[in-house]
Amino acid sequence: MPDHTLKVALGVTLDDASVELVLRREPRIELLRGPGLTPPWRWSGDWEGDPDWRRDPAQQRAFEALLDDADALFGIPDVSPEALARTVRSNPRLRWVHTTAAGGGGQVRAAGLTAEELERVTVTTSAGMHAETLAEWALLGVLAGAKDLRRLEADQASRTWGDGRRLMRHVSEMTVLVVGLGGIGRVVAQRFAALGATVWGTSRRREAVEHVDRVVPLDDLAAAAAQADAIVSALPGTDRTTGLLGAEVFGGLRPGTLFVNVGRGTVVDEDALVEALDAGRVGFAALDVTAVEPLPVDSPLWGHPSVLLSPHTAALSEQEPRRIAALFAENATRLLDGRPLRNVMDTREFY
Amino acid sequence: MPDHTLKVALGVTLDDASVELVLRREPRIELLRGPGLTPPWRWSGDWEGDPDWRRDPAQQRAFEALLDDADALFGIPDVSPEALARTVRSNPRLRWVHTTAAGGGGQVRAAGLTAEELERVTVTTSAGMHAETLAEWALLGVLAGAKDLRRLEADQASRTWGDGRRLMRHVSEMTVLVVGLGGIGRVVAQRFAALGATVWGTSRRREAVEHVDRVVPLDDLAAAAAQADAIVSALPGTDRTTGLLGAEVFGGLRPGTLFVNVGRGTVVDEDALVEALDAGRVGFAALDVTAVEPLPVDSPLWGHPSVLLSPHTAALSEQEPRRIAALFAENATRLLDGRPLRNVMDTREFY
Repeated sequence: MPDHTLKVALGVTLDDASVELVLRREPRIELLRGPGLTPPWRWSGDWEGDPDWRRDPAQQRAFEALLDDADALFGIPDVSPEALARTVRSNPRLRWVHTTAAGGGGQVRAAGLTAEELERVTVTTSAGMHAETLAEWALLGVLAGAKDLRRLEADQASRTWGDGRRLMRHVSEMTVLVVGLGGIGRVVAQRFAALGATVWGTSRRREAVEHVDRVVPLDDLAAAAAQADAIVSALPGTDRTTGLLGAEVFGGLRPGTLFVNVGRGTVVDEDALVEALDAGRVGFAALDVTAVEPLPVDSPLWGHPSVLLSPHTAALSEQEPRRIAALFAENATRLLDGRPLRNVMDTREFY
Repeated sequence: MPDHTLKVALGVTLDDASVELVLRREPRIELLRGPGLTPPWRWSGDWEGDPDWRRDPAQQRAFEALLDDADALFGIPDVSPEALARTVRSNPRLRWVHTTAAGGGGQVRAAGLTAEELERVTVTTSAGMHAETLAEWALLGVLAGAKDLRRLEADQASRTWGDGRRLMRHVSEMTVLVVGLGGIGRVVAQRFAALGATVWGTSRRREAVEHVDRVVPLDDLAAAAAQADAIVSALPGTDRTTGLLGAEVFGGLRPGTLFVNVGRGTVVDEDALVEALDAGRVGFAALDVTAVEPLPVDSPLWGHPSVLLSPHTAALSEQEPRRIAALFAENATRLLDGRPLRNVMDTREFY
């Protein structure tokens, strides 16, 4: 570890204003960056970049040379497990990789790094940067279900309000179960509490969580879900969470329960969800994520009248690159000062 | 005014649980109520009641006899200006009428009461009872616009996400202008502030308002609107507010400004709104109220792709009757104790 400088290579594109923010906040960073070595953004924070863009062989060599000279990487190179594995193996001085995703565990796991490599290279994530924007999507999903958006739209299309006005439901009168009280789940809980909802949340730990009226052990998930008016999943995608929301949970819900997923799509057994939608136990589902993305064209979720989909974009924000840059600068300072980093990835469960 | 009891007649139907709540909270109330003298509810808090229901002549006489024996009325009788006028004139002991609407000024004005009658009979409203639920509708409207609901729905219908992902907008990054900082507007302001929005609000008074970052004089409405990302109208319907949101305001908005109306429809010049929608200055409008209700079948608002309508139902709640009953009981106590009532109607501007 260098005493006075930290050589950082950009594994992904970062806008100039955010680069300046990093260097201003931590002047001990030496930035390794060649012009045009990472793909252009299609939108602010488009870490994967334009898929049509390619490096020529000379650019590829230059890019890898920068990566191999770095102490730390901003972003998994090309958001690619293979590029990460190559860099870790060919650069023995590499000590730290910061992912621009809230998670990124999937890529790190897919890189197949050895225990020694994971010991040498600390991985940190951008968890928490997306919490506010994901919480807004969760609110939209629950509000759309509570106010019976699809019925309003159908009535509007018919230019009449039908013969009976059904009462809307109100978040302030609901019990909202937040599944997963990590960085995202906690902000989700705070937002619903601010609307007056009763908030329950699942956690593997038993300790109290701010804005959460009742912390539910994960073992009691199905029982708690059966009493909730709305369920918001904010779980990461790990071996332990795959299919966690399945037939046992969806089968026991009360009619009209609202469901939102702002975590990872793999947490949901989509067959069980569709069955619950068809049976009316789920009254409305808003899904920013699906098990396979983009969602296969033959998925019944596309055409279901009680489903709202978005293409894993609810987290994206104009301000995201700046927020991630500020977190990166803070962690660089911590690393240089020998203090523990924020948002260190659990490299056994990869989240 | 009686010293120890207050004779109350029900001008509208109230459910048994709410009646019990009133009598438990203020045992000095003597309730005048005959069975079956008011119409059945079609839904909880359906103050106007089933329109097909009629009293027979004997029932009408019994109903009027109760009204004419009362010191106070829960609800404008039959929510009818004529019935209110009749009761005020034939019952000289009547001192207080509580409206079950947030406003009710329209009915009271239409009753054509004299200054002396308005002096004798205090009118109180249920303002504030609907604030939470209306604030939720306002949030749904702004979130639906911010997240580009209609584009998501169009993409979903086509089973593809198109060639470019547009960034969603985030309430936490918006300036939200709340037009009207009465009971509803203040809760709207609080809710948006809780999401991290910058909140501006218009007021005729210049004093600071909690959760409002900038209080805008009503004279500066158009200039403030031109800088806002979202505008939420929570104004009552009065002579002074009719058409207040017209060409001057809508003509100056930045492209894509979001608009929500949870106040009264008469505040909006709908031609000017439609023009702004067509020009893209209003990117999305969510309207729980319209100038004429139900909205005429030929209104272009019905079919506009950037409009979400609901039939003036956003305020309704299962809990509304109980909340209004609790307010009524509190005011009864205040009246009996000689203290000032809450929510007294301004009988010059009728709000």
